[in-house]
Amino acid sequence: MSFKIQISDSKSIFERPTKNLADLENIVNEVFEDVKKNGDKALHKYTDKFDKVKISDFRVSIDEIEEAEKLVSEKLKSSIQLAKSNIEKFHNSQKIKKTIIETTKGVKCWQESRGIEKVGIYIPGGTAPLLSTVLMLAVPAKIADCKEIILCTPPNKNGKINPAILYTANLVGITQIFKVGGIQAIAALTFGTESISNVYKIFGPGNQYVTIAKQIAQNKGVAIDMPAGPSEVLVVADETSNPKFVASDLLSQAEHGTDSQVVCIVNNENIYAEIELEIIQQLEQLPRKDIAFETLKNSSFVCIKDKKETIKIVNEYAPEHLILATKDNDFYIENIVNAGSVFIGNYTPESAGDYASGTNHTLPTDGFAKAYSGVNLNSFIKKITFQKISKKGLQNIGYAIEIMAEAEQLMAHKNAVTVRLNSLKQ
Amino acid sequence: MSFKIQISDSKSIFERPTKNLADLENIVNEVFEDVKKNGDKALHKYTDKFDKVKISDFRVSIDEIEEAEKLVSEKLKSSIQLAKSNIEKFHNSQKIKKTIIETTKGVKCWQESRGIEKVGIYIPGGTAPLLSTVLMLAVPAKIADCKEIILCTPPNKNGKINPAILYTANLVGITQIFKVGGIQAIAALTFGTESISNVYKIFGPGNQYVTIAKQIAQNKGVAIDMPAGPSEVLVVADETSNPKFVASDLLSQAEHGTDSQVVCIVNNENIYAEIELEIIQQLEQLPRKDIAFETLKNSSFVCIKDKKETIKIVNEYAPEHLILATKDNDFYIENIVNAGSVFIGNYTPESAGDYASGTNHTLPTDGFAKAYSGVNLNSFIKKITFQKISKKGLQNIGYAIEIMAEAEQLMAHKNAVTVRLNSLKQ
Repeated sequence: MSFKIQISDSKSIFERPTKNLADLENIVNEVFEDVKKNGDKALHKYTDKFDKVKISDFRVSIDEIEEAEKLVSEKLKSSIQLAKSNIEKFHNSQKIKKTIIETTKGVKCWQESRGIEKVGIYIPGGTAPLLSTVLMLAVPAKIADCKEIILCTPPNKNGKINPAILYTANLVGITQIFKVGGIQAIAALTFGTESISNVYKIFGPGNQYVTIAKQIAQNKGVAIDMPAGPSEVLVVADETSNPKFVASDLLSQAEHGTDSQVVCIVNNENIYAEIELEIIQQLEQLPRKDIAFETLKNSSFVCIKDKKETIKIVNEYAPEHLILATKDNDFYIENIVNAGSVFIGNYTPESAGDYASGTNHTLPTDGFAKAYSGVNLNSFIKKITFQKISKKGLQNIGYAIEIMAEAEQLMAHKNAVTVRLNSLKQ
Repeated sequence: MSFKIQISDSKSIFERPTKNLADLENIVNEVFEDVKKNGDKALHKYTDKFDKVKISDFRVSIDEIEEAEKLVSEKLKSSIQLAKSNIEKFHNSQKIKKTIIETTKGVKCWQESRGIEKVGIYIPGGTAPLLSTVLMLAVPAKIADCKEIILCTPPNKNGKINPAILYTANLVGITQIFKVGGIQAIAALTFGTESISNVYKIFGPGNQYVTIAKQIAQNKGVAIDMPAGPSEVLVVADETSNPKFVASDLLSQAEHGTDSQVVCIVNNENIYAEIELEIIQQLEQLPRKDIAFETLKNSSFVCIKDKKETIKIVNEYAPEHLILATKDNDFYIENIVNAGSVFIGNYTPESAGDYASGTNHTLPTDGFAKAYSGVNLNSFIKKITFQKISKKGLQNIGYAIEIMAEAEQLMAHKNAVTVRLNSLKQ
């Protein structure tokens, strides 16, 4: 396995892997229709077909959770607890205090937050149990006081769910865990079935089928966290960064999957030789080295000398993860506009935010950071506006309302003010 | 025109007018493809076809804005200015101060807000100029510091835009105003054309074609404010409310369009006789009485004696606008979970929030208040998370990251921590 960094033109950064997902829509629509019509019966059918297992009861039992507790090591338990505590602290800090604003004397306006009552969390299956994603979605849902939190995740071929997933969900206080995955899980959360209640908003990552299923759920009126695409990191490095650390960060993104994107911008070409050497050495040690190797071949290594040019390109790319390991970090922090999450300095690897620093790891990919925030407490909350106007207040703004309503030719809108103002004249 | 209130079963509330919009998708897709391929040429074609006018330059000129300034009355100008000032005060108050949270010693996390760089505002045409919607969308976009704000609105048959729209847009500081409406405007904002830049998020109301066009824009990766449906109000009244005021509020919703929904819940049937009498009297005076009359025929008037039962139904209905005119307002405020905007007391008509109190009038309809907030400052902002971890900080949480990454079988994620922790041991 030989690896050679090709320094590319900065335009190469923007060649994101694109996929035409339209072909998948037919199968997704078919499953949606079936689940809508046949409920649990359809869930059984597709679990049988896609997960190759027959499930008698989709809901995970208390016995199964107790069994899982025994199977998770103490060191993993305490690690999960530390991560949970940090994620709680950071997301708790995002609560907003109600503030009453008197916009005009006698006109009081304010916002109040309410948790979305019913939310669904999707955790993909596969070889690795995404216990960190359980924390990232369930912890803020709990803080937001979402009343009903439903977690769906596919069973393995023995009809089981990874014990670390069950332990984590239970630790956070999720009581409704269902062994249903893929398109059929998103359809169940959209329409509801005999076993699974429908929800108002669906969160969580997934493969391309799940991505399309969430888009269709959204078209049917269910909110979703954000559109999804392959994961990505952009590292900005210079002579003050540590090549070993930079290489490890690039590799940790590269191991996700061959559609992941890894971008590295340096201000001096010589830096690459050192990073390259480190990548070669570290790559050899990795169990997923084949995936990482493929990803790196499609990655962009760019040299840009001017920091203003660099930040322009970073903002245009809008990375999901941005690692700043330069002497000019403050400049980049001040001027970054489009990014999901930013990691500052040599001792802040992306892994920290992926697991345990407290920030959320559900972030906008594929340039969506231009319009979307990553998941945060707000994602689980609705803000209702309130207003209370006194007699005096209405006398202060009533005339303006009447005039504007008249200009919009909405005379009943005007009249709602006029009848009140008239009553105050008497 | 005879009107008789039929007191209905509370279930009738949930019979929202539904429309199958799937039939419209073909025409919307066709226009999108054409605009994507042919840019301005397609905009000319559809403006010709749908708006029945030939436009030489889509962009509104400075001359046109200056001309508009002269055509707007002074009383309308000062009313718009008052409304602008209140909307600014309330949306300014929604700014969030950066707060650095140390989740573990040496692990600092925070959020920073950034305005979405490019946003599109759609203002529908028709007989009435929706100048209030210009304020509701452009004012928070300015406060959020969105760099490029593009306003599209259809021209009338003379190729003009209502002067009040131009005056308001110019007052708020919108410089890019385009005479393009309907599906073709949303397509232009999605793909960009020679005249109109593409944007990252599209805001604004519209007819069913615009609604579908925004959904398709969203599927193509452009964010939108929220899904749309017909406007609605739910009034909760009792013996302390003023029947004249309640009637005026119901009518102001009813005049919007025959698909609007008007719901009134009282705790005592006798109250309806008075409200009915007032509706009959006020209806006669309205220019849009035919529309209001049709809407009222489809409306729900319900009597529920128990306030706990009432709030349950209100939350299940999730009204866009909720007017509380009862002795139990505090109970309802405390227990409301699903609503767009709440109007409290006898002197707080919905019109106040529609125009000038300061709250936003772009609100979730059709039950979407269960998952969505109305437009607020946050709608124009992305929150980026930042984290900065010291050596000591990484030593405090590094072990947990290593263990969790290992459990997820992501060894390169683990390694990014290990190489750093090892360097600190030396």
